[in-house]
Amino acid sequence: MNKITIHSPATVANIVCGFDILGFALNKPNDTITLSISDKVGVEIINEDDFNLPTQAEDNVCGAALLALLEETPEINGFKLISKKNIKPGSGIGSSAASAAGVVFAANKLLNNKYTNADLVRFAMNGEKVASGVKHADNIAPAIYGGVTLIRSIHPLDIIKINAPELHVTVIHPQIEVRTSDARQILKQNILLKNAIKQWGNIAALVAGFINHDYDLIGRSLEDVIIEPVRSILIPGFDEVKKKCKEVGALGGGISGSGPSIFMLSQNANTARVVENVMKGIYNKIGVDFQTHVTTINQEGCKVI
Amino acid sequence: MNKITIHSPATVANIVCGFDILGFALNKPNDTITLSISDKVGVEIINEDDFNLPTQAEDNVCGAALLALLEETPEINGFKLISKKNIKPGSGIGSSAASAAGVVFAANKLLNNKYTNADLVRFAMNGEKVASGVKHADNIAPAIYGGVTLIRSIHPLDIIKINAPELHVTVIHPQIEVRTSDARQILKQNILLKNAIKQWGNIAALVAGFINHDYDLIGRSLEDVIIEPVRSILIPGFDEVKKKCKEVGALGGGISGSGPSIFMLSQNANTARVVENVMKGIYNKIGVDFQTHVTTINQEGCKVI
Repeated sequence: MNKITIHSPATVANIVCGFDILGFALNKPNDTITLSISDKVGVEIINEDDFNLPTQAEDNVCGAALLALLEETPEINGFKLISKKNIKPGSGIGSSAASAAGVVFAANKLLNNKYTNADLVRFAMNGEKVASGVKHADNIAPAIYGGVTLIRSIHPLDIIKINAPELHVTVIHPQIEVRTSDARQILKQNILLKNAIKQWGNIAALVAGFINHDYDLIGRSLEDVIIEPVRSILIPGFDEVKKKCKEVGALGGGISGSGPSIFMLSQNANTARVVENVMKGIYNKIGVDFQTHVTTINQEGCKVI
Repeated sequence: MNKITIHSPATVANIVCGFDILGFALNKPNDTITLSISDKVGVEIINEDDFNLPTQAEDNVCGAALLALLEETPEINGFKLISKKNIKPGSGIGSSAASAAGVVFAANKLLNNKYTNADLVRFAMNGEKVASGVKHADNIAPAIYGGVTLIRSIHPLDIIKINAPELHVTVIHPQIEVRTSDARQILKQNILLKNAIKQWGNIAALVAGFINHDYDLIGRSLEDVIIEPVRSILIPGFDEVKKKCKEVGALGGGISGSGPSIFMLSQNANTARVVENVMKGIYNKIGVDFQTHVTTINQEGCKVI
């Protein structure tokens, strides 16, 4: 096999109290990536979408991830990549991670699974660095492993798959720009110990709620006293969305990644649809364009199609 | 029944990365408490040990906890209490919590289980306030619930029992004084966000390790980048104990509560004994007197005997 087509999923990072450590994959939207081994040195990139992304390998998320993989793969010269993105860049649902994770996942299939998932995360983080300046793994890990993933540590890389129950996800992407780098810069470098204690109480309980399939506990633990109060200011309508969605039965939710998308978790598909209507109503009133997704947690991550 | 005798267990609070939210109960040592309902108003206290604790109810840990319970229990006038403590006050293994939890547990038995475990924690926290000035529950919760307990929140009180695997515990109590109030005061009120992120990665992974009975993950997650670097300075030999105990097979460990006791977790009884010998060797060399305990996690908490 020297050519493959895969789907790479959108992902939600941070999961409220899980800033920088917790993420999950979504069953839609997906990017479609076709990759082939090439005799030419380096990475040739063809974009089949309207996002006008760079085609120079080192400036491109997919390119940077594949170059990192190629450095440890002397047996081949390069790759040819055809990318068709459905996940809008800048949406906050892991568009760059879907690119970076998808290409190294595809490359690994072409290389007969030479690399471990942990290796793939390591390569893909070079793509994230192109996108946001930071080698973070909280979107890449769920895109590759599927399900809910916990990143205990980046150095050394330590990723744990968390066995969560069936969860329905509603996402709204208000069509405003929140740059990841700006969203990082407004965070305070120092925080109060007492707030950190609240946060680690919630994250510990959220993980217990996931593993024990305790929906009530998941709902009670979806609280962020550190990041959300700062970042939500960048997202018009955030507080109202959160309040009203919980009133109609959502377990809870918050900013997806660094925004501007907002996600809500629900125990069943019907509630997730009602939540979507509540979100639409609020953004129609505000007068900001939006896109919504109603989906579930994707348990397998990237997959060959 | 109007008289009862119970055992109340020692407990380890904080569990390395679980500062203020995580604790577990030990199978030894135990305090022995005999409680009876009395016609006299208030709490009469008889101490059958050599610790010379106050006998005025409002100045005594047991007394304060029982007075809080009596306030909501108009059907009785008071209690008579005989306390025989085996858990040394100031040891860092929940001596005051054993008193406070034990008396309200015993009272509840005399009252035919009128109150929930959460109520008992609420009453007992008044005893902790007498001991340390702070109404914390991280020793009281495991003493009452047994096993490993997570306190997601104090206001409102939200306690989750974490289903941990069999774990062997070695504790050394160096006979030096570290006052809880001093140990609290030396903590910085502000911490770095990047350290807090490491901490919540570890606590999330530790809880996952406990519930999934993953000993390796438990070991990797027993890391504290915030409290231990500050507090361990108060405990001579701390770094050497930790390093050498891990070298002989301990999963990990740290300061018990606010110290001076140090605890280590092991996967089997034999390792826990080897760990004890390592600890003894280090403190013999330093020339500080000590007491050790080799035990297991107590799954039931306080119990009637």
